[in-house]
Amino acid sequence: MKITMAQLNYHIGNFEGNLVSMKRAIDQARNEGADLICFGELATCGYPPRDFLEFRDFIQKSMGVIQELCEYSQDIGIIVGAPSINPEIEGKDLFNSAFFLYNKELIHIANKGLLPTYDIFDEYRYFEPSKIFNAVQFKDKTIAITVCEDIWNIGYENPLYTVCPMDEMMAQKPDFIINLSASPFSYEHSRERIELIRSNVLKYQIPMFYVNHYGSQTDIVFDGGSVVMSANGNVYDEMPYFEECVRTYQLHDVILGQQSREQTKEKIDLIYRALVIGIKDYFNKLGFKKAILGLSGGIDSAITTTLAVDALGAENVMVLLMPSQFSSEGSIQDAKELAINLGIQYEIIPIQDVYKSYEKVLQPYFEGLTPNVTEENIQARIRGMLLMAFSNKFNSILLNTTNKSEMSVGYGTLYGDLSGGLAVLADVYKTEVYQLAHYINRKSIRIPINSITKPPSAELRPGQKDSDSLPDYDILDQVLFQYIEKRKGPDEIIEMGFDSVIVLRALKLVNRSEFKRYQSPPVIRISSKSFGLGRRLPIEAKYLC
Amino acid sequence: MKITMAQLNYHIGNFEGNLVSMKRAIDQARNEGADLICFGELATCGYPPRDFLEFRDFIQKSMGVIQELCEYSQDIGIIVGAPSINPEIEGKDLFNSAFFLYNKELIHIANKGLLPTYDIFDEYRYFEPSKIFNAVQFKDKTIAITVCEDIWNIGYENPLYTVCPMDEMMAQKPDFIINLSASPFSYEHSRERIELIRSNVLKYQIPMFYVNHYGSQTDIVFDGGSVVMSANGNVYDEMPYFEECVRTYQLHDVILGQQSREQTKEKIDLIYRALVIGIKDYFNKLGFKKAILGLSGGIDSAITTTLAVDALGAENVMVLLMPSQFSSEGSIQDAKELAINLGIQYEIIPIQDVYKSYEKVLQPYFEGLTPNVTEENIQARIRGMLLMAFSNKFNSILLNTTNKSEMSVGYGTLYGDLSGGLAVLADVYKTEVYQLAHYINRKSIRIPINSITKPPSAELRPGQKDSDSLPDYDILDQVLFQYIEKRKGPDEIIEMGFDSVIVLRALKLVNRSEFKRYQSPPVIRISSKSFGLGRRLPIEAKYLC
Repeated sequence: MKITMAQLNYHIGNFEGNLVSMKRAIDQARNEGADLICFGELATCGYPPRDFLEFRDFIQKSMGVIQELCEYSQDIGIIVGAPSINPEIEGKDLFNSAFFLYNKELIHIANKGLLPTYDIFDEYRYFEPSKIFNAVQFKDKTIAITVCEDIWNIGYENPLYTVCPMDEMMAQKPDFIINLSASPFSYEHSRERIELIRSNVLKYQIPMFYVNHYGSQTDIVFDGGSVVMSANGNVYDEMPYFEECVRTYQLHDVILGQQSREQTKEKIDLIYRALVIGIKDYFNKLGFKKAILGLSGGIDSAITTTLAVDALGAENVMVLLMPSQFSSEGSIQDAKELAINLGIQYEIIPIQDVYKSYEKVLQPYFEGLTPNVTEENIQARIRGMLLMAFSNKFNSILLNTTNKSEMSVGYGTLYGDLSGGLAVLADVYKTEVYQLAHYINRKSIRIPINSITKPPSAELRPGQKDSDSLPDYDILDQVLFQYIEKRKGPDEIIEMGFDSVIVLRALKLVNRSEFKRYQSPPVIRISSKSFGLGRRLPIEAKYLC
Repeated sequence: MKITMAQLNYHIGNFEGNLVSMKRAIDQARNEGADLICFGELATCGYPPRDFLEFRDFIQKSMGVIQELCEYSQDIGIIVGAPSINPEIEGKDLFNSAFFLYNKELIHIANKGLLPTYDIFDEYRYFEPSKIFNAVQFKDKTIAITVCEDIWNIGYENPLYTVCPMDEMMAQKPDFIINLSASPFSYEHSRERIELIRSNVLKYQIPMFYVNHYGSQTDIVFDGGSVVMSANGNVYDEMPYFEECVRTYQLHDVILGQQSREQTKEKIDLIYRALVIGIKDYFNKLGFKKAILGLSGGIDSAITTTLAVDALGAENVMVLLMPSQFSSEGSIQDAKELAINLGIQYEIIPIQDVYKSYEKVLQPYFEGLTPNVTEENIQARIRGMLLMAFSNKFNSILLNTTNKSEMSVGYGTLYGDLSGGLAVLADVYKTEVYQLAHYINRKSIRIPINSITKPPSAELRPGQKDSDSLPDYDILDQVLFQYIEKRKGPDEIIEMGFDSVIVLRALKLVNRSEFKRYQSPPVIRISSKSFGLGRRLPIEAKYLC
């Protein structure tokens, strides 16, 4: 038996586009003599469709794609993820299903049993968990079809679910497992995924064909990395990351289990590639070509601009340098040097005159009051406004350059440097931003060395440095990681050996700046806990602050 | 037996404050000779605590409150909602529980079985659904303790859940039901709630004591309206809306069922009161006193300002009038008249000079290009910036005045008029805004008549009217309601008799402006489907747009 796995880039709600991609993959599978082709979870409508699932019209359009695929299934089995209607009157209206189509008939539906409802996942919001799990006969084989999370309840000390769908299907002696996934990237996830698949094949002693999506959906990036694993735990094949891949496998060879082919997994390389596709797909899927950014001469905007160039091409990236009286000559030089290195259009627009016009209208009201964060925010907001004016006038998207350390502690101005259509670095801690800079410069100097070596500063008042108001990033990032990624409380973090003053201050800053994050742009997720829908906290709470 | 119900205003994560409120209510209950006092769902930590529930530290602090209440339970039974730890290793780590404390001992825990995971609710994100339901003996009575949603699975054609906790507890012949709720306000909800409670008491033929929270948590408002219902379906008592209430009931009288006392329920009156407490609590809980708003002379900013005055007092509300060359003299007059009517401080800051300073720096780049939405946005953003400067300088919160019709179709400028700490009217359609105006003016003219009667305009270009770019609000609001509240698709709405061009255009505008709503302020929720965490849609989708 020959099995084709199709690792595709789906577009949410773009039923027509998704159908076209799938038909193309089916044509290839046919040419390669495949008996069966497998697509990803909710492939008809893209993942995550979120509340569009509550619209009957949306479900009907997805069913239309299933019907078209069914018509296209002569002599080839098609396993494809899509929502299906729960026939019972009790419980949620939908299942998250895998449809098995063959010879223009629906021969089987496998409904997902384990519904991830944590972090960025909301599946129990829409779907009823299946309690019935059956393998299916196809030609001379018995196949256990699972959907994503269905295979994830093993190998944990504290499992999230009380059932394990594969346990139930083993009674039917399946020959292999197929898993349709939409499993988002984070920099450790490809490793965890392979370990998890290995736990499954070793436990059940049958091979697995695991098909993932690739491509990004605003904040969520799918890395692909679909896996074929033999029963002995060998990675028979791991598909490339961040690209389309349609490949056909001879089941017999997979069963032999003598091949082992894995992708390399280096954290910073993966993050770089995830961010590039995050930018690229955001523009593609929204139908935009051009990006605009503000360049400060600092490392964050330098990296973001470089990523934008790598995603969209130098001809589609434009930057504004917007010096004030507090901008150092060095910063302007560093920014210019970057623009020249990258070959992008840059314009220099000093903001003093606009600033003075604000000063003049506000003077009667602010007279005699000490300058404070108000004046700093005005500068940041003038820059945000100029960038948005270019964005509006030239039909480009403003990319936000805030890093995760700043976003965590609220070191940024709402409607100023926190503006933008997409926050590229807001899941990357400052210490990781430096690592990205070295990675980007590994072959030749693209990021000016001075942008990397100078002390970080917002340059909103004379001689300002980030270290005036924040702990050193080396320490701060570790504390933030324990609080944000690991959900440790203050006592636990202090017990790890961090200074209690720093810990309590950092946690207070994080909790007090929830109101800023609420209004910040969507963040490309590269870690296991990113800001956005994956981290939901009340604004008005009084906890650790 | 005497039972006290405590309808309190909890503050998320403010364990100390919540404990103080609860002890005060217990003191009152003791004075009134109560045997038993009941608080709301998750009363120790406030509702919704969201991802704070993932912090062990947070759970421990909640357990600390339970211990303190336990110490305080000599001679009085205390039933209080709090998270509890799931002792099983499989499944989620927590239950959403009702702790029954008496004579310094924990005598019973009732765990919630039905976990709302839709709209603003995410309970399955945190909690394991209980599968075991037991009534508890207390003195000579048997009590069925339920938590919120546990009583909501009856009376629907298409029930959301496959179990009904009360069905299981009836085998133990309970004498009455206690329900601890945190059931948010929407303008139809108090009526639905009473119907639901009635379905329960009539089905099970025993009385119910239903205790709710009151007060707001940023976007979510709890109206209180706690209910004591006799087995015959009579509302023995309905507590007042939007205020603290601690009352003691003689069980014997409730069983007799001869009293019937309900609050009046008028849609616009309820919305008005919800918005006022929404503002008031947001400021109180964040520790702010003063609000700032921009007054355009239009109806939305007039209403928002009036609500702010009613919530915070005239002395705490300041407004800016920021005319441009496109502002009519009438608008400035209307705005002044409102400020004078309300007795609030107002300042007039024309924006032309600041606008010119932008024009000057942008001129080299925009030369020869037709003025478009870019220039309109600059005006809106200058106003946003001036308001934020005042907000920063005078430690006040900017209130956003966008209505739901505008927010739906994206008729507003990000970082301009979409700025603010809290969006007061963004769940109120324009047609309802007019009804609010008449309600506010019912005793005396507070909102200038001209603000109500003139055609709506953003005044961002000469002679601009909302109706130039949008359908009439009378039609638009109905279409939006069907799409947003009722989740109807385009075909269904057109079949209702609406013009297909208007419908398709409106739905496209809604879906295309998701990126704006993503970055908009939190919205006080007054309907069954508000923008924010209750409505989750992808930005980058291609559906109906």
